[in-house]
Amino acid sequence: MNPIRVGILGLGTVGCGTVNVLARNKEEISRRAGRKIEICEAAVRDLTAKRDCPLDNIKLDSDPMQVANSPGVHIVVELIGGTTLAYEAVKQAIKNHKHVVTANKALIALHGNELFKLAQDNGVIIAFEAAVGGGIPIIKSLREGLSANRIQWLAGIINGTANFILTEMKDKGRDFADVLAEAQELGYAEADPTFDVEGIDAAHKLTILASIAFGIPLQFSKVATEGISTIEKLDVEYAAELGYNIKHLGIARRAADGIELRVHPTLIPDTRLIANVNGVMNAVLVMADAVGPTLYYGAGAGSEATASAVVADVVDVVRTMTADPDNRVPHLAFQPDSIVDLPILDMDDIETSYYLRASVVDKPGVLAHITSILAEHNISIEAFTQKDSRQMDQDDVQVVILTHKTREQNLNKSVDKIEELTEVNGKLVKIRMEHLKR
Amino acid sequence: MNPIRVGILGLGTVGCGTVNVLARNKEEISRRAGRKIEICEAAVRDLTAKRDCPLDNIKLDSDPMQVANSPGVHIVVELIGGTTLAYEAVKQAIKNHKHVVTANKALIALHGNELFKLAQDNGVIIAFEAAVGGGIPIIKSLREGLSANRIQWLAGIINGTANFILTEMKDKGRDFADVLAEAQELGYAEADPTFDVEGIDAAHKLTILASIAFGIPLQFSKVATEGISTIEKLDVEYAAELGYNIKHLGIARRAADGIELRVHPTLIPDTRLIANVNGVMNAVLVMADAVGPTLYYGAGAGSEATASAVVADVVDVVRTMTADPDNRVPHLAFQPDSIVDLPILDMDDIETSYYLRASVVDKPGVLAHITSILAEHNISIEAFTQKDSRQMDQDDVQVVILTHKTREQNLNKSVDKIEELTEVNGKLVKIRMEHLKR
Repeated sequence: MNPIRVGILGLGTVGCGTVNVLARNKEEISRRAGRKIEICEAAVRDLTAKRDCPLDNIKLDSDPMQVANSPGVHIVVELIGGTTLAYEAVKQAIKNHKHVVTANKALIALHGNELFKLAQDNGVIIAFEAAVGGGIPIIKSLREGLSANRIQWLAGIINGTANFILTEMKDKGRDFADVLAEAQELGYAEADPTFDVEGIDAAHKLTILASIAFGIPLQFSKVATEGISTIEKLDVEYAAELGYNIKHLGIARRAADGIELRVHPTLIPDTRLIANVNGVMNAVLVMADAVGPTLYYGAGAGSEATASAVVADVVDVVRTMTADPDNRVPHLAFQPDSIVDLPILDMDDIETSYYLRASVVDKPGVLAHITSILAEHNISIEAFTQKDSRQMDQDDVQVVILTHKTREQNLNKSVDKIEELTEVNGKLVKIRMEHLKR
Repeated sequence: MNPIRVGILGLGTVGCGTVNVLARNKEEISRRAGRKIEICEAAVRDLTAKRDCPLDNIKLDSDPMQVANSPGVHIVVELIGGTTLAYEAVKQAIKNHKHVVTANKALIALHGNELFKLAQDNGVIIAFEAAVGGGIPIIKSLREGLSANRIQWLAGIINGTANFILTEMKDKGRDFADVLAEAQELGYAEADPTFDVEGIDAAHKLTILASIAFGIPLQFSKVATEGISTIEKLDVEYAAELGYNIKHLGIARRAADGIELRVHPTLIPDTRLIANVNGVMNAVLVMADAVGPTLYYGAGAGSEATASAVVADVVDVVRTMTADPDNRVPHLAFQPDSIVDLPILDMDDIETSYYLRASVVDKPGVLAHITSILAEHNISIEAFTQKDSRQMDQDDVQVVILTHKTREQNLNKSVDKIEELTEVNGKLVKIRMEHLKR
């Protein structure tokens, strides 16, 4: 069979990784795919820049539209990122009946509903394994491997930068700002780290995972998103003493009244496998009715790890492109006409457990006041400890409480009441807690 | 589209699980698959037995051949087990141009080469995700998710019974025989536990994983297999003190001179994620050149966990059955004409580290004798401790040595020499050790 001709948009880290993997493993890959895969064309911003990959036989263009319009290209691999140029080029490629492989989570999370419709109308595939969890085949596993299951919830460490920072804070007792600076030096974090540390990147990925898990439309704007920039090392330490690790999780859950979609720091028991996923590594834990818990672990970013997913998608497209378009694996796991727009719950309506920390004046009666407010709100307590403050400049003691499950609006009301107590100084620290059991 | 009609061979634990999952999740599954999947026929040994699943609209036969020959059946799901009746029925189904889904690791490991050839000649698919790792989509992940990679090695906890026994021995300081008896009571182990505790079941599964990872023929007879029945709680305890857990691993590795295929108890550092996979759970760690390490975790057995993989395979077959047979995912990941018969190394030629324990008379000079024998064989020592014997009836002390990597035949020669020392009583305990790094 003739080789498949691939055009790449963007030869940055992942683009060069893709070129390198395809070049190095070309024999292994074509032994699997049954035909050769060649990169014939690439669009780059700077035609003369030095690159970390061989460019033999690759025609360079300065305009992504040239690749999207190139008659010789069967599959367009979009690795530009962002949602402007990438969006236009992907649309153009689809209109030209080219299949698309992309690592662009923002593009899929924000424009996926429209792009998948356009792809369907044009009989082409958009593959996006690399958009979530880097090289971990999590999209394939959820969409195909677990297709027999009703999925109940999933929880993922899906941003390596945030996980690296939290791991360092725990293992070395360092401050957030200190580790962030190091992560930026190491290249794990961008100069503007907002997307990673404020949870936006994780929210993009969670949007995609939730759609595939539950058969709902992509709706990024409804993800409740909190980052890790407010996490103090004190809380990391107290959590550890109580047997919990703080991880930045993306959580999607099928609740009685709708779907929970939330990204936030979370205490999880340190005996759980996912609590021991450290450094820049990613993992997604999925709870499904037939199979029970399954977990998928690997590198969530990086040049060749992401390229691994990009190239696997290319091989998948090669295998599927000649098949009946109506009988392919649907983009979002469920057939387009059976996507159901389930309500996404407001954070007020989610139910979970909480870690609370209050700075209080060390006087008799304070604990009684706090616990009675919780009792009035029907919030039961799992654990309760009092700590001498590690903050040098104050005499307060720290009261740490782990609650049992309650509705968030109820918890918030009790927190407001506690903050009104004269013995309580400042705001309470509130971190959600998940046991990740069935 | 018309429903797909499935015939099941065997309505035992997994067969009933499959019926139950398909019945309970039929809406969810057809929203994914784009068409209905119906079980129309089943072969059972005892037509009148009471079963834990609804049998409405399922025609029962007493002969598997009836299902394999039934004109109304598109896909035959083989859940009989064993390699006699199952082998004949699967061959018959293939000759009748029916696709086959099976959970039968022995059948694939022993007869897969022949069956895949027969399937190819008849234009049908044999799907066998459920044969390894129960509900974990490990076959799909290796075969499709990692298709861009050159796989370097994989190491799997692929027998839940053995892992349950080792976990209990470690966590509760119990003896092998004691835990085995409990596992039999709980239904985790068969009345004849040989397949599980002597590693045969794991060797079947490793055979399959290795073929898919490296593109080599299935060759069960070449797997070097050791079970866990000789593991003493003393060694589990000493290993733990040194920072290692003993796990029963199936290991396939691409070495310089060929492929290592081995199943045996293995010390692994307790900081590794896979070292913390406990109880009946399974996990496979894969090291590949582009993506690095990835790990897949879940239930390796059980009614609905296995059914999850069976039904996912049925959905996959439904999606692929209308496509060009020459463009499907190859059964063993690599195109049949590019399977390469790489040499499988003899155990003498593998290279790894070792845990050694010697019972020695507590006299000056013993340690010097032992270490000089190791030095003569160029074996370096990672750690060395001496323990008072916990065995009541002897005055010996226990010498525990962790070695660095060496060739097994070299290690064995040094062990023979050490056993010849007059101060050393009986045989040395020798357990292989893997660090599972790149």
